[in-house]
Amino acid sequence: MKKIAINFCPTGMVPTKSITEFVPISATEIIEQVHEAYDLGITIAHIHARLENEQPTHLKSYNQVIFEGIKKHCPELIICASSSGRTVKSFEERSEVIELAPDMCSLTLSSLNFINQVSVNAPEMIGRLAEKMNEYGVVPELECFDLGMINYGKYLIEKGIISNFNYWNLIFGNIAGMQADLSTIHTAMNAIGENNKSYISFGGIGNQQFIANQLALLTGNGVRIGLEDNIWYNKERSKKAKNIELVRRIHDLMKLNELELFNSNEFRQTYFSN
Amino acid sequence: MKKIAINFCPTGMVPTKSITEFVPISATEIIEQVHEAYDLGITIAHIHARLENEQPTHLKSYNQVIFEGIKKHCPELIICASSSGRTVKSFEERSEVIELAPDMCSLTLSSLNFINQVSVNAPEMIGRLAEKMNEYGVVPELECFDLGMINYGKYLIEKGIISNFNYWNLIFGNIAGMQADLSTIHTAMNAIGENNKSYISFGGIGNQQFIANQLALLTGNGVRIGLEDNIWYNKERSKKAKNIELVRRIHDLMKLNELELFNSNEFRQTYFSN
Repeated sequence: MKKIAINFCPTGMVPTKSITEFVPISATEIIEQVHEAYDLGITIAHIHARLENEQPTHLKSYNQVIFEGIKKHCPELIICASSSGRTVKSFEERSEVIELAPDMCSLTLSSLNFINQVSVNAPEMIGRLAEKMNEYGVVPELECFDLGMINYGKYLIEKGIISNFNYWNLIFGNIAGMQADLSTIHTAMNAIGENNKSYISFGGIGNQQFIANQLALLTGNGVRIGLEDNIWYNKERSKKAKNIELVRRIHDLMKLNELELFNSNEFRQTYFSN
Repeated sequence: MKKIAINFCPTGMVPTKSITEFVPISATEIIEQVHEAYDLGITIAHIHARLENEQPTHLKSYNQVIFEGIKKHCPELIICASSSGRTVKSFEERSEVIELAPDMCSLTLSSLNFINQVSVNAPEMIGRLAEKMNEYGVVPELECFDLGMINYGKYLIEKGIISNFNYWNLIFGNIAGMQADLSTIHTAMNAIGENNKSYISFGGIGNQQFIANQLALLTGNGVRIGLEDNIWYNKERSKKAKNIELVRRIHDLMKLNELELFNSNEFRQTYFSN
């Protein structure tokens, strides 16, 4: 059984303080929550920076402060940046964070709808982002909200556009995406196939986060966890979650399942080629 | 076993005469090929109009000529218009064909990528198109290129935004969409579930058209066939297909499988509520 890599996503594009007081927005808050999670045990931190007015930002300067703050306490932690196109549209804006050479950066593999919004990721944009990641030695986090994105990822791998190790992040539960049921997960895993160059992680939106995470542990795959995708601790949605509580619950389950954490250095040595 | 509804899609958004001489472009060509297919046996004709320069058009006037020409020879044939957003963007342009009150009109249930292009279908646009179809008594053709679109269709049905009978058109084989393998098809069918208010049709892009069609016949579902999705007759891609040859091959297979065609009137009486 592979060890479990925990990908911690504390902030994301959507939650603000008015949605949940527990979401970290300022650099200081994000750094502190990453440190806290790291002390408990995570493998990767997936970072979204915010402006003072809480809006998402892709500015290198805002990201740099966070990356440096994280590395002060945990220099080995794998940092994954975001190239999301939900608020900025140009290649230059979306890709400037890559110039900081984080370990990883998200790469969403198609256009899609969220509940109230389109996320446009044109084929040309995806190709250019992937090439810039290659150029800076950044491993793409292959974000898949549906089966077709897995297929497109395979196509980019076949074409040599994605040549590094393949970190698949399957996110279940978007209203216009794949859902965290057994048949879908089986089909998605089939599509990726078994190979040594891949590591697969399951995340979920809203109530599907905890379902997806548990199915990940049961199938020996990685976990993406945090307020980015889900702000509730319980099914009834009466208790708002803290990031650290979500990470702790994963650790409790891993213990019950006799599963070990992939620490950042082990993960890097096992998969990263550079 | 249900009878088989054949949805004939002769033209589409993409093929031009330089891609295949057999694609019907002018109103006269489209009408003639629909008549020919109707005489052989089809249930629905899915129509895309083209300008004189072969570019797709949503203009009511161009569609009207085709609809009227088809109805002269086969007044009972179910006509399905297109609300595609691949070349026109505004709600007014995309929806004007609905004012002709065709029997059906396509409704793509999310944004997605094709090989070189984004097809943007924002949640608000989908909702407005569905409402206008309701207003004109037009049955939506629920176009699904991936599992998430099925999920979004179910959400619209649950919200009462799609209230007519549910015609699901599952299209396999887009590079950033679901593929025509057994596991995916099983998962898609599971997601829709069994119910009397649904009819499901399988189409496929390129070589996956014939695979999807055969799996449709084997599972008792409908067939979408024509040059819109596939211009080749054989796997090797050495022989370009004619629309009528593609329809004839489906009929040959139906005969071997002892399957009967759903004629347009039977289909209308069985499913359409108005």
